Amino acid sequence: MATARQYMILQHMKNSIYASRIGSGSKQKVPASWLSVLAGRPQPGKVAGCNGLAPLTTDYAATWTRRSYTRKAEVRPHQSFVVSHETVKAKATDKKRKLYTEVRDDTDMEQLTVQWENGQVQEYPYIWLRDNCRCEECFHQSAFSRSVSFPQLDVDIRPSQFRLSYDRQKIELQWEDGHNSSYDATWLYKYRFDQSSPDLTLDPKLHYWAAELQDTIKEYDLDELTKSDECLYDWILQMKIVGMALVKAGSTSEGQVIRIGNRVSFLRCTDYGYTSHVKAKYQDAVNIAFTNKIFPMHVDLVFLGRPPGANIIHCIEQAKGEGGENWFVDGFNMAEELRREDPEAFDILTNTELEFFDIGNDFYGKFHQRSRHPTISLDSRGRPDHINVSDHGRDPMLRIPARKIQPFYKALKAFSNKLYDPKNIFSYKLKEGDIMTFDNRRVIHGRRAFETTTSSSRHLETGYLEWDELDSRLRVLHKQLGYHNL
Amino acid sequence: MATARQYMILQHMKNSIYASRIGSGSKQKVPASWLSVLAGRPQPGKVAGCNGLAPLTTDYAATWTRRSYTRKAEVRPHQSFVVSHETVKAKATDKKRKLYTEVRDDTDMEQLTVQWENGQVQEYPYIWLRDNCRCEECFHQSAFSRSVSFPQLDVDIRPSQFRLSYDRQKIELQWEDGHNSSYDATWLYKYRFDQSSPDLTLDPKLHYWAAELQDTIKEYDLDELTKSDECLYDWILQMKIVGMALVKAGSTSEGQVIRIGNRVSFLRCTDYGYTSHVKAKYQDAVNIAFTNKIFPMHVDLVFLGRPPGANIIHCIEQAKGEGGENWFVDGFNMAEELRREDPEAFDILTNTELEFFDIGNDFYGKFHQRSRHPTISLDSRGRPDHINVSDHGRDPMLRIPARKIQPFYKALKAFSNKLYDPKNIFSYKLKEGDIMTFDNRRVIHGRRAFETTTSSSRHLETGYLEWDELDSRLRVLHKQLGYHNL
Repeated sequence: MATARQYMILQHMKNSIYASRIGSGSKQKVPASWLSVLAGRPQPGKVAGCNGLAPLTTDYAATWTRRSYTRKAEVRPHQSFVVSHETVKAKATDKKRKLYTEVRDDTDMEQLTVQWENGQVQEYPYIWLRDNCRCEECFHQSAFSRSVSFPQLDVDIRPSQFRLSYDRQKIELQWEDGHNSSYDATWLYKYRFDQSSPDLTLDPKLHYWAAELQDTIKEYDLDELTKSDECLYDWILQMKIVGMALVKAGSTSEGQVIRIGNRVSFLRCTDYGYTSHVKAKYQDAVNIAFTNKIFPMHVDLVFLGRPPGANIIHCIEQAKGEGGENWFVDGFNMAEELRREDPEAFDILTNTELEFFDIGNDFYGKFHQRSRHPTISLDSRGRPDHINVSDHGRDPMLRIPARKIQPFYKALKAFSNKLYDPKNIFSYKLKEGDIMTFDNRRVIHGRRAFETTTSSSRHLETGYLEWDELDSRLRVLHKQLGYHNL
Repeated sequence: MATARQYMILQHMKNSIYASRIGSGSKQKVPASWLSVLAGRPQPGKVAGCNGLAPLTTDYAATWTRRSYTRKAEVRPHQSFVVSHETVKAKATDKKRKLYTEVRDDTDMEQLTVQWENGQVQEYPYIWLRDNCRCEECFHQSAFSRSVSFPQLDVDIRPSQFRLSYDRQKIELQWEDGHNSSYDATWLYKYRFDQSSPDLTLDPKLHYWAAELQDTIKEYDLDELTKSDECLYDWILQMKIVGMALVKAGSTSEGQVIRIGNRVSFLRCTDYGYTSHVKAKYQDAVNIAFTNKIFPMHVDLVFLGRPPGANIIHCIEQAKGEGGENWFVDGFNMAEELRREDPEAFDILTNTELEFFDIGNDFYGKFHQRSRHPTISLDSRGRPDHINVSDHGRDPMLRIPARKIQPFYKALKAFSNKLYDPKNIFSYKLKEGDIMTFDNRRVIHGRRAFETTTSSSRHLETGYLEWDELDSRLRVLHKQLGYHNL
C-alpha cells in the first residue's frame, strides 16, 4: 500500500463524501461507496487510503494487505483498462475548457496531429474527423445521433485547409468537397483512441472478495433506496464493483422485488414470470430450488442463451430449524485464482462448451430451453465476463472428443472445489424482510439443506434485473448527481 | 445439384408434407417449410430436390444454381456442424430401440468402449458415465435434473464390474464404491461426444438470401398463426432458417404485435416499453426513426449489451406518397461474402469493437445506454452470430491505435457498400395490416425517405421477441407435433 494516496474526509453527506487529498490539498465530492466499498462508512476527520476506484480506510488497508489481496491485484490482467480513481478525479477537478496549442497536417499519413495545452499529442485520421463532424447537417441535434451515414462517406477524403480559431478552442476545417467542420478542443480530447479514458460502466474496476464479505457487505434500506437517488446510485455501484448488497425491506409482504425493479426501470421477464415464489415442496417439484435439499452452487437460468444479469431474492418466510443458509462465492475471483494456479484448467473451462437445459410448464405455458456456454466466459479483453455453473441443469452432452473428457472433468472439479471451500464462501441465512441482491453472471450461489416442519416453511420471492437497465440508471444518476462528465 | 436427393410429395397437409424418397421409397412427415422454405408451397405429385434441412423444388433448384448459391454453400465454414436433413430423417425413421453388440473395458484409458448394432463404436470415460448416472438417487425425476453434484463426484472413480443385459438394451455397471448404474442403449447413443447429432435450435442450417427474397418470402395469416400449432412452428422455423417472414394481420388496430408476443410467450421489454409507435415527426424527434428522412441500414438497439433477438413491425398506416419502402439485407450472407472476398476486412470487423449509445426519456424515465460490440460478432465456431450496424447510434469512441483507424473505415465501408447494393436488398413497402417479422441479430434493415402530407402520415407499431423464447417454443412444438425426438 506504499503508493496509495491518502485522503482526509471533510464531510460525510448522506451517500457522498467530500474529501481532501493529503499533500496536494485538492478537494472533491465522491460517492460514499468509493471510500467505503469494503470498509463500512468512514467518519469525517478520518484518513482514508485510496486504491483505484474504491479507496480504502487505512484501518482496512492493513487487513487488505494481510489477506494478500494486493498480490492478487498485481497479477490481475488488463488492470490498466479500468475506470481508475485518478481518471475520475482528473475529470472532476479539470472542469475548465481545454485549449489547443498546435494542429499540423501529416499528409502522407492522411491525418492531422493535434496538441493540447497539457502537452498531450494525438493523431486524427481524416476519415475519423469527417465521420464525426458535429454540424447540424451531419448530426441530428434532438435525436443526438449521426445523420451522415456510410453511403455518403468518402473514406479517402482530405481537407483542403484548416486552422486553429483565435481562442484556440476550435479547429476549423474545410474539406475538398467544400463541407466545413469544426472540432472543439474539450470534445476532441475525450476521443483519443486507445489513449481515451476507460468507461464508467463498461470498464469497472472490480473488488474481489471471499468469506470476509460477511463483515463488510453493505446494507441499504429499501425505503431510502426508493426515495434517494444517491442511495440508488450507491447500491447500483456496489452491485457493479462488489457484485452483492443487502437491502432491508422491513416488510414480509410480497411485491418488494417489484418495487426494486420499478425503481431501476423494469424487471426481466422469464418463463417463470416477472417474479417467482420459491417454497419447499419435494413431491413433484419442477425444480431443485423447490425442495428442502441442498441446492448446489450455481448461477440462475444458465439454460438460457442470455441468462439474467442480477438476482433479487426477498425472504418472506425463513425456515425456523437448522439449515437454509445461502452461500455466495465471487465467481470472478475464483476464475482469476484458477487462472493463476492452474492455467491449463482455466484454459479448458474457458474453451469447453457445456449444454444446459430446462423443461417445464409455468407462467407462459410449456417451455424447453437449451443453451451452450463455457464454464468461464471471457470478454474480448480476456476478463471473466460470465460464469456458467449449474450441476442440476447441465446436460450430458459434451461435443468434444472422448479423450478430452477426463481432463475437462478434472478442470471443472478444480474450479468446483473452490466454490465449496468455506474460506471462499460468504454464508448468510436471510432474515425475514431481507432482500439479497447480486450479480447473477458473477456471483455463484447455493443453499444449505434445511428442516421443514408443519409449522415452519420457507418462502422467497425472486426476480431479475438486466445489467443494461442497471448500467443505464447508473449513468443517468451519475450525471444528475454531478459527479463528473461521462 | 448433382448430389441432391429427390422426393415425391405424397400429401400436402396444412403445414406438413408427407413425402417419399425417390430411389429408396422411404416415407416421412416433415414440416412444410423444409420442402418449401424458398420455393413456395409444393403440390402433391411434384418432385422436390433436397438440400440439407430445407429441400428445394426442382424448379427452384435451377434458379439456385444459376445464382451461384451452391458455390457459396461450398465455402461456408463449419457446414457439417448443422442439423442436416439426413440427421432428422435418420431419427424420424429409426424409431426402434437401439441395441448394444459389445462393451469392453480400456482400463488404461479409464473408459469403456461400446458398440451398437449399426457398427458405431464410442469410448465413454468412466467419469462421464458416473456423472450421468440416471438412477433415482443421482437424478431428480420430476425436476428432470441431476441431483448428484460436483462435491460428491470422484473424478478418478472406476467400475468394479459391468456387463450387458440379456436383451442388449442396457449396460449394467457397479462402481468401486458399490453404487449401481445402468445405461440404456438408445439413450447412450444420443451422447457420442463430438460424434453427436447437431442440435435443432443451436445448430440450424441457415438459408442465405439476397434481393430475390421478394419473390419467395413466406406469408402467414395471423389468425391461423394464433390457432394452429403447425403454423406457429412453421413461422418460427422460417424466422430461424431464413430470418424473415411476413404475417398478415388483416387489421390496422393496435395490439397485433402483442398478439404475436403472447402466442410465443412474452415480448421483450425495453426502455421504450413493450411495443412502441413509430410516427413521422421531425421537430424534436428523439430518434431518427421518428423522422421522414432516410433511415440508414441498421439493426435495432445495438446500444444495449444484449440487443433484442427478433423484430415485429406492424404497419397501421402507410405513407400514401412516394417512398417509405423498408429495406432488408441478410447480414450473415453479407458477412460470409466479405469473408470470402476480403478476409482482411472481415478480420478487422470481427475484432474491432465499436461503442454505441442511446440517451433519452421514455416509458421508464430517463435512460443512457452504452454498449461495445464488433460489427460482425462470431460464435465459438466462427459462424456469424450477431451483426452490429447502426450509423446513427455509433459513438465516435474507437479504442484502437490511430494507425488502425483508416483500415477500419475501409473495412466498414466495404461491408456497408454491400448493405446498400440493390442486388442484396429485399425492398418492400409494408401494406396496412402487414406485420414484418425478422431476426434482429441477422437482418439489417432501413427505410427510404418518404413524403408526408397533412392528410397522409405513417404509423408503425413495433415490438421484440427474444430467441430464447422463440427457440423454446420451437422445441416444445417440435416434440408436440411428433416430428422426431430432440
